[in-house]
Amino acid sequence: MIENDLEFAVLDSERQKRTGYPEAVYCRGKTTEQALAIINRMAAQGIPTLATGVDTELSSRAKRRYAKTKYDPLAKVLTIDGPYKEASGLVSIVCAGTSDLPVAREALLAAEFYGSKTELITDVGVAGIHRLLSRLEDLRKARVIVAAAGMEGALPGVIAGLVSVPVIALPTSVGYGASFGGLAALLGMLNSCAPGVSVVNIDNGFGAGYLANLINLGMNVNALR
Amino acid sequence: MIENDLEFAVLDSERQKRTGYPEAVYCRGKTTEQALAIINRMAAQGIPTLATGVDTELSSRAKRRYAKTKYDPLAKVLTIDGPYKEASGLVSIVCAGTSDLPVAREALLAAEFYGSKTELITDVGVAGIHRLLSRLEDLRKARVIVAAAGMEGALPGVIAGLVSVPVIALPTSVGYGASFGGLAALLGMLNSCAPGVSVVNIDNGFGAGYLANLINLGMNVNALR
Amino acid sequence: MIENDLEFAVLDSERQKRTGYPEAVYCRGKTTEQALAIINRMAAQGIPTLATGVDTELSSRAKRRYAKTKYDPLAKVLTIDGPYKEASGLVSIVCAGTSDLPVAREALLAAEFYGSKTELITDVGVAGIHRLLSRLEDLRKARVIVAAAGMEGALPGVIAGLVSVPVIALPTSVGYGASFGGLAALLGMLNSCAPGVSVVNIDNGFGAGYLANLINLGMNVNALR
Amino acid sequence: MIENDLEFAVLDSERQKRTGYPEAVYCRGKTTEQALAIINRMAAQGIPTLATGVDTELSSRAKRRYAKTKYDPLAKVLTIDGPYKEASGLVSIVCAGTSDLPVAREALLAAEFYGSKTELITDVGVAGIHRLLSRLEDLRKARVIVAAAGMEGALPGVIAGLVSVPVIALPTSVGYGASFGGLAALLGMLNSCAPGVSVVNIDNGFGAGYLANLINLGMNVNALR
Amino acid sequence: MIENDLEFAVLDSERQKRTGYPEAVYCRGKTTEQALAIINRMAAQGIPTLATGVDTELSSRAKRRYAKTKYDPLAKVLTIDGPYKEASGLVSIVCAGTSDLPVAREALLAAEFYGSKTELITDVGVAGIHRLLSRLEDLRKARVIVAAAGMEGALPGVIAGLVSVPVIALPTSVGYGASFGGLAALLGMLNSCAPGVSVVNIDNGFGAGYLANLINLGMNVNALR
Amino acid sequence: MIENDLEFAVLDSERQKRTGYPEAVYCRGKTTEQALAIINRMAAQGIPTLATGVDTELSSRAKRRYAKTKYDPLAKVLTIDGPYKEASGLVSIVCAGTSDLPVAREALLAAEFYGSKTELITDVGVAGIHRLLSRLEDLRKARVIVAAAGMEGALPGVIAGLVSVPVIALPTSVGYGASFGGLAALLGMLNSCAPGVSVVNIDNGFGAGYLANLINLGMNVNALR
Amino acid sequence: MIENDLEFAVLDSERQKRTGYPEAVYCRGKTTEQALAIINRMAAQGIPTLATGVDTELSSRAKRRYAKTKYDPLAKVLTIDGPYKEASGLVSIVCAGTSDLPVAREALLAAEFYGSKTELITDVGVAGIHRLLSRLEDLRKARVIVAAAGMEGALPGVIAGLVSVPVIALPTSVGYGASFGGLAALLGMLNSCAPGVSVVNIDNGFGAGYLANLINLGMNVNALR
Amino acid sequence: MIENDLEFAVLDSERQKRTGYPEAVYCRGKTTEQALAIINRMAAQGIPTLATGVDTELSSRAKRRYAKTKYDPLAKVLTIDGPYKEASGLVSIVCAGTSDLPVAREALLAAEFYGSKTELITDVGVAGIHRLLSRLEDLRKARVIVAAAGMEGALPGVIAGLVSVPVIALPTSVGYGASFGGLAALLGMLNSCAPGVSVVNIDNGFGAGYLANLINLGMNVNALR
Repeated sequence: MIENDLEFAVLDSERQKRTGYPEAVYCRGKTTEQALAIINRMAAQGIPTLATGVDTELSSRAKRRYAKTKYDPLAKVLTIDGPYKEASGLVSIVCAGTSDLPVAREALLAAEFYGSKTELITDVGVAGIHRLLSRLEDLRKARVIVAAAGMEGALPGVIAGLVSVPVIALPTSVGYGASFGGLAALLGMLNSCAPGVSVVNIDNGFGAGYLANLINLGMNVNALR
Repeated sequence: MIENDLEFAVLDSERQKRTGYPEAVYCRGKTTEQALAIINRMAAQGIPTLATGVDTELSSRAKRRYAKTKYDPLAKVLTIDGPYKEASGLVSIVCAGTSDLPVAREALLAAEFYGSKTELITDVGVAGIHRLLSRLEDLRKARVIVAAAGMEGALPGVIAGLVSVPVIALPTSVGYGASFGGLAALLGMLNSCAPGVSVVNIDNGFGAGYLANLINLGMNVNALR
Repeated sequence: MIENDLEFAVLDSERQKRTGYPEAVYCRGKTTEQALAIINRMAAQGIPTLATGVDTELSSRAKRRYAKTKYDPLAKVLTIDGPYKEASGLVSIVCAGTSDLPVAREALLAAEFYGSKTELITDVGVAGIHRLLSRLEDLRKARVIVAAAGMEGALPGVIAGLVSVPVIALPTSVGYGASFGGLAALLGMLNSCAPGVSVVNIDNGFGAGYLANLINLGMNVNALR
Repeated sequence: MIENDLEFAVLDSERQKRTGYPEAVYCRGKTTEQALAIINRMAAQGIPTLATGVDTELSSRAKRRYAKTKYDPLAKVLTIDGPYKEASGLVSIVCAGTSDLPVAREALLAAEFYGSKTELITDVGVAGIHRLLSRLEDLRKARVIVAAAGMEGALPGVIAGLVSVPVIALPTSVGYGASFGGLAALLGMLNSCAPGVSVVNIDNGFGAGYLANLINLGMNVNALR
Repeated sequence: MIENDLEFAVLDSERQKRTGYPEAVYCRGKTTEQALAIINRMAAQGIPTLATGVDTELSSRAKRRYAKTKYDPLAKVLTIDGPYKEASGLVSIVCAGTSDLPVAREALLAAEFYGSKTELITDVGVAGIHRLLSRLEDLRKARVIVAAAGMEGALPGVIAGLVSVPVIALPTSVGYGASFGGLAALLGMLNSCAPGVSVVNIDNGFGAGYLANLINLGMNVNALR
Repeated sequence: MIENDLEFAVLDSERQKRTGYPEAVYCRGKTTEQALAIINRMAAQGIPTLATGVDTELSSRAKRRYAKTKYDPLAKVLTIDGPYKEASGLVSIVCAGTSDLPVAREALLAAEFYGSKTELITDVGVAGIHRLLSRLEDLRKARVIVAAAGMEGALPGVIAGLVSVPVIALPTSVGYGASFGGLAALLGMLNSCAPGVSVVNIDNGFGAGYLANLINLGMNVNALR
Repeated sequence: MIENDLEFAVLDSERQKRTGYPEAVYCRGKTTEQALAIINRMAAQGIPTLATGVDTELSSRAKRRYAKTKYDPLAKVLTIDGPYKEASGLVSIVCAGTSDLPVAREALLAAEFYGSKTELITDVGVAGIHRLLSRLEDLRKARVIVAAAGMEGALPGVIAGLVSVPVIALPTSVGYGASFGGLAALLGMLNSCAPGVSVVNIDNGFGAGYLANLINLGMNVNALR
Repeated sequence: MIENDLEFAVLDSERQKRTGYPEAVYCRGKTTEQALAIINRMAAQGIPTLATGVDTELSSRAKRRYAKTKYDPLAKVLTIDGPYKEASGLVSIVCAGTSDLPVAREALLAAEFYGSKTELITDVGVAGIHRLLSRLEDLRKARVIVAAAGMEGALPGVIAGLVSVPVIALPTSVGYGASFGGLAALLGMLNSCAPGVSVVNIDNGFGAGYLANLINLGMNVNALR
């Protein structure tokens, strides 16, 4: 559909029909102009927009133009005309340490935007396992859990052994030395001994939140089949 | 609970209560005697058993002792007294090439054992994209899709752009040279541009099937909340 | 030939005779002075020049001195007295995402400079496969295709299964986390299941464009043998 | 087309129309029965077949059934009813050392099967550069060159600086220690300073030969456009 | 001291004086003859001997010659005239899974040989965290803990958050796929968020046991200073 | 205990009871506000605090608020109300080169804070082995040795062959080229032929000092059992 | 010798006796104050000094204090009171491209300082092999050759096949993408098929020059034995 | 020269003129027939031959045909009509452990064959540094030293700080776990802090011995210039 073609980007306007959700805008590696042009095109079609990797300049320019925007400077997430769906179910975002918060919040905001209620449980890394155990009741309320951790990445495997719902492991680049930019956490999560865990890319908060919502809501939709 | 302790293994008998499903038996790296002892202990407690990495000798010895066993020599999966739950919903296992079949079937058998209906769609690698597109209608019937591929690992990302359900990417060690034992496929899947994809360990068919079932059935359970 | 020797660089003035094309100037890692001196020496010999990795300062200084210059700030490519040959045939440059454009345009400008007609097809990543399929007719007009992608790098393999011409896979460093600076894309492309694909270095737009032109024009030259 | 579906494999029978050539059969990782079934299906459709990774047992069984078979035990390549096209043009396969011969011959046999005349130039590694230079005249007769090398992988870059045709770099796993199974050769080839080089997977003789033929014959086909 | 020189090995007979303990014999990579000659030389000097990587043939030959030998076929450890010191203190060897037992037992036997009381706690991986927590009282009796784990390697970090003594992390090569021969466990352990953990080489049970004993007994010796 | 919960961090106030020591504050990756809030909360509970990765701004703000602070700008370590215990025993910090000092001093300050006497022995890398040997008498006074080195990382192994106490190997990211950010040193230390060595993460001075103190003081505590 | 001890560095004043040459000062990773203090101490002992990694500030401060200084801003090498020996023999420094010059000149200046005559041969990369061949006569005059190259690193192996003297391969970090900071060049050089080649660390110009001089002059010294 | 061409190998008969020494025969990866044919061709030209990687079958067949052969089964080196030159000078081969002997002896036999006197110093690894120091006088007699070590690879750096001659570092694949097939030793050696060290490929005993001889004898030849 030619009217979706910018010079540098082709909007995937059929995406909603195929996958149930519109495209998000990944702004890292794009110029402010490019990102804004894509946002404008989506707005012109009346599609609620979630954008990640949004710096304050882009945020300001969007806010000047659009009324219903929200910007989270820690997660660098901007939404316009959100949420895409009213919230239902529950996704818990669990976070090993304070430094994992930006990525964890990106996951949370994505899950919320696409239609999930969310809860954030912070600083429950496995080095003090009782902190996690004291939140078990909360954890068990969720339909899906996103577990974000850097360094050794052990959190998702421990959680998956304690709950009966899917755990999405979200490795972060938090760490130093032999963490190799999140590689240690990624490998740890892939090798989790507990079944029920799957893994997304390092720092891919958006992907974790999107998938968590898909599982959470899919539970509604599919149960009716 | 002391009666669950073998000299070399501690059965996690509370696992069913915590996670909804009993332990599986991972037989690779265990002696036949060790594996059999664990299987016997589970049988003694009346727990239906799924074992992976089962060679023909272990399979034969189990069959002599237990009536209701099934063994798949390609996937090296043995079940006793299965399935654990009657099948419902639908999990599709999609497979890029013939050589990915052993891992794909491990996923399928795990999903079936724990309570899912399954469908296997083979040899639909992205080098001949029309083969995949011709199966779209089938794919869209599933509540969850497991996409197994070695080599370049592009299949899950392409599928995720075509369906509205979660896609579990299952990298296999099929390939040579710069596939580095499945690393290329793993990295490709982690970097998928399509949201809705998460990844399990290379050749971890069991983990993919277990998680697929968890999502599939969770849809039933949670929808009632 | 001693007059080709600068203090720090030896012009390969026989290169045209041996390979059919003059040297290009790779400016990254050279000082502005060094780059300019090499450009001047080539100009003094009347050789049309293509330079890559050209920043705006070098571009400005070249423009002040030479009349027939063109500079593309996105691709950082400068040409003087180009093109080297009049354009014939057709090279298509296909691009998975907006962020791949700088590298893709470097390929396009190189192919054009050395004698090819070109077409740029943007934002047709495999996460929305219909975008690619809708351009198939265009793609099939090309004699050679350059397919640029970061992240998972699946694009060239999918294209190669759809066309009857060589596909040059051009991995880009676009991505984050487990893309490891383009490694994931590179490995994916090397492991493509579709024959007819070969790969150049990460971000090596010049190399892809040069080779595409070589194949495109070689088709003219050799057919006469 | 359902009659192309085996239980474990789906023949891509439209492949010839889309890409100009039929599928090859990659036998590594398949059982003899699986490989044979695929070969039989292709024969039943009258498609000339090239199979790689063929061991002597598979070769014997194929020979008993089909009249017009050829088997090269060094390259492990089997052809039935070949060649697919009558030979024209010229592809040169250049080989750094004796140990690279199996992979180099796989490339040669693929190029021949699909329609190229070929020449094999052996043992011209860069440690004795005069051996290569003494064959320059031969090299320059080719329309495309495949340069196979393990260890340091320097051969393709040196050749590309001497000729005016595309060079396909074919890294082999020949070497030890820090060759890391062909990784050193692969990286060396990707970093070649000479333009006109592109690279295929380690030990992917088939891919190199197929692509070489595509470029070689494409020169005929396209020149007519 | 010349009489310590075999043709291929130089006994470090001063080692006891410098470090408090004699050399052990690492038999992997040595011929049976070489290993036996070294063992004989040590015996001739009346030094109690611990040898690792001992296969059954070497074990049998040593048993025929020396009276006071012990051989553990799982750990492949042989001792002659042990223990080197009477046991005191307590070293706990904790083990994530059954497959880690060979390496864990190598650690245990080394610690015992050099002078420690030991306890083995098996199959308490973090996927069922309650199994570990139920053994806390036992764990807290130890002066030093060796925690052996493959796969994700999370065990040592969890333990270190629960006890007040040093934890020696012992990664094992148990696992598959992205465990990369123990690399995932090694990295996980190096990145442990809990202080009090240090790491030895993959599968280095001997090193872990030796060091554990050094810390355990050092506590006796040094406290008297 | 809810009063330990900040919005972004949960103090592990039971840590002292479980492990004998309070939490330290790792400030890298936290905002100044976050770090300060955690420090304040600990101070409010009367817990002596050690913080690592403290920049001068954070240091200044802490100094304005708290009387008994010390700041080491080379090691970027801040302590408030320290030491946690009066010093006893002896931990030696040995350092291969001048550039390793920041990390070595972090180790020293941690060991001191938690209750150890310390000695720093600098610039005794193995390239001039006599420098190390001339300090042997000093080295042998320690109960535990921390050996910090970048580049080739050979120091800990050489020391461990000369002393009878545990050696904690502390790899640093000092180096260039094939040191790969400390990887070469890390691998060298993990492969040390001398038993009695264990390794912490690259640049993890805190971890090395904490563990050294644990071993040093444990010697007091446990000897009484 | 206590007067050689600075607070942060221990001069290895016996080094000249043991190895024939004094220490050099490696300034990267040291503060200007630290580097200057070491330089001053050496000057105070009348030792001619070579320092690498010297920035302009350090250079200026040294020049103000010492009369006989030389500074090369490209190589970042400073010498005081050099050369250490009068020049004899001949070391040739060969350089693949202009961007390799800083490292190549570091090698050249080190060789000169320690007592060698030198010749620099630039821009003779293997992509234009005739440039190298035209300098063969020059190359064959040297007693030792240092061959510096980034990217594919093929130069040393080609040279070693053409001359009868040792070739020191000096990989540089020049390159991009899959050069991985010089790793590709390093691996290529280690895998050189031509004997007579050995390799130093990436960008270690000093080490290459020092060793070249050692071989060059050793030839004088040892021939007299 | 056509009579040097076998079907699969081209003898580099000019090699002696260019480099001073004839080709050696690398037999790994060649069939017995291929290796023997090359050996025969060299014998026919009266060239003394050194072959590496020779198994007992090849050795036996060569011995039956040629009178003056020597075979070392540990090093797998065969020589015919050696040595190539009468021995002079002195090359010392130093060896960290017993398991490094096969590679160390390959180096020794190569150095001897090409014209050096040699001495082997075994089992002087850095874990017992006094063993090395007690051999210093011997070490200082050599003109060149080859230092072979696996595991941590620290030996060459320690030696280079003690002597005034070039040290060739020879990493071996001896080790396990994080030695990664010799990678740890290789990286350690490349990062040696002591100048005067250069490195050859893992397990490349031949290359180390050849180069050692080149330096040793070059000292004679060149001193006369």
